[in-house]
Amino acid sequence: MARPRKSQLTREALIELGMELIAVHGYHGTGLKMILDAAKVPKGSFYNYFSSKEVFVAEIINHYSLHVGERFDAYLEVAEGDPVTILKEGFALVIRELEGSGMKGCLIGNLAAEIGTLSPSCQAAMKAGAQVFCSRVEALMEDAQKMKLLRDDISAAECASLVWSVWEGGLLKAKIDGDTRTLRQHIVIVMDTLLRP
Amino acid sequence: MARPRKSQLTREALIELGMELIAVHGYHGTGLKMILDAAKVPKGSFYNYFSSKEVFVAEIINHYSLHVGERFDAYLEVAEGDPVTILKEGFALVIRELEGSGMKGCLIGNLAAEIGTLSPSCQAAMKAGAQVFCSRVEALMEDAQKMKLLRDDISAAECASLVWSVWEGGLLKAKIDGDTRTLRQHIVIVMDTLLRP
Repeated sequence: MARPRKSQLTREALIELGMELIAVHGYHGTGLKMILDAAKVPKGSFYNYFSSKEVFVAEIINHYSLHVGERFDAYLEVAEGDPVTILKEGFALVIRELEGSGMKGCLIGNLAAEIGTLSPSCQAAMKAGAQVFCSRVEALMEDAQKMKLLRDDISAAECASLVWSVWEGGLLKAKIDGDTRTLRQHIVIVMDTLLRP
Repeated sequence: MARPRKSQLTREALIELGMELIAVHGYHGTGLKMILDAAKVPKGSFYNYFSSKEVFVAEIINHYSLHVGERFDAYLEVAEGDPVTILKEGFALVIRELEGSGMKGCLIGNLAAEIGTLSPSCQAAMKAGAQVFCSRVEALMEDAQKMKLLRDDISAAECASLVWSVWEGGLLKAKIDGDTRTLRQHIVIVMDTLLRP
């Protein structure tokens, strides 16, 4: 296999470092200089790799979404039990990681809050990223509905979309509170009571 | 009545302008210089008014929460119908305003996402701010439960807290999508289906 070109490696390093720094400092709090210094890339060469900060951040969001999708799929490969159990244990797993990460939360939710409608390319990337989560939750919920484990007077797509919002709003509450108690409670209420048949 | 001192007026102007600018540019995107210039206050004098940017932003959050509480109470004064109708029409009203504001969203949710656990004083202010919303929604839901308009196998406090998260998560989705379709749909599903007795 051909070795990847140096420019491709630099590009990937910038995306990886950008993702880490933006997760901590946000969009405006992460200067390009900060990323370039961390990647040991000369200041002037950023625009050889990306046409603008917005395009760069859209690529970071795509990279993050790909990672979320891969992790979700890897979890589904090994998860056992009915679809409701798989969903609940998946959320519990991510909540434990969140606690270990100092409540960094979700890059997509964080950027949606901070830069909102600023950039169409970032919006498109965030929309696709939310769909990575929703499509997988929807598939599990559809199975759960067929097994009569979830109410079916609301479509699986609507349930999944609602769970995305509960999850993202609950992550904001976890940041405010400095703990995940409310987020955990939300998941229990939604999965064990509100969505039960 | 004694006239307010000039320093008090300047302090209030800084809070008001800071609130407006942070709603658009976020915490990191709003430099103190930007606010001081807008308020025509000399750069060096900021620390005569506030001990740090964090303390300043905590005061902005408190100011915003006071405003939200006052608006909620003014709405309750004139709102007609049962508590579920009052809640649904209240949300519809705010959604229409959101559309007119270019999806600015909620200052508390936006700052929670961006600065998260960065500052204990901001966290405390955001926690109190979320409670301004939750306590009023909870009171309406408690009334609705007594009138058998809402399910009562979950406490009104838990319902209100969940609705806060649905609302904040739905606001993030509105920013990503550039429209409020999903947010509107969430409110209908929660109020007309999931929380119905």
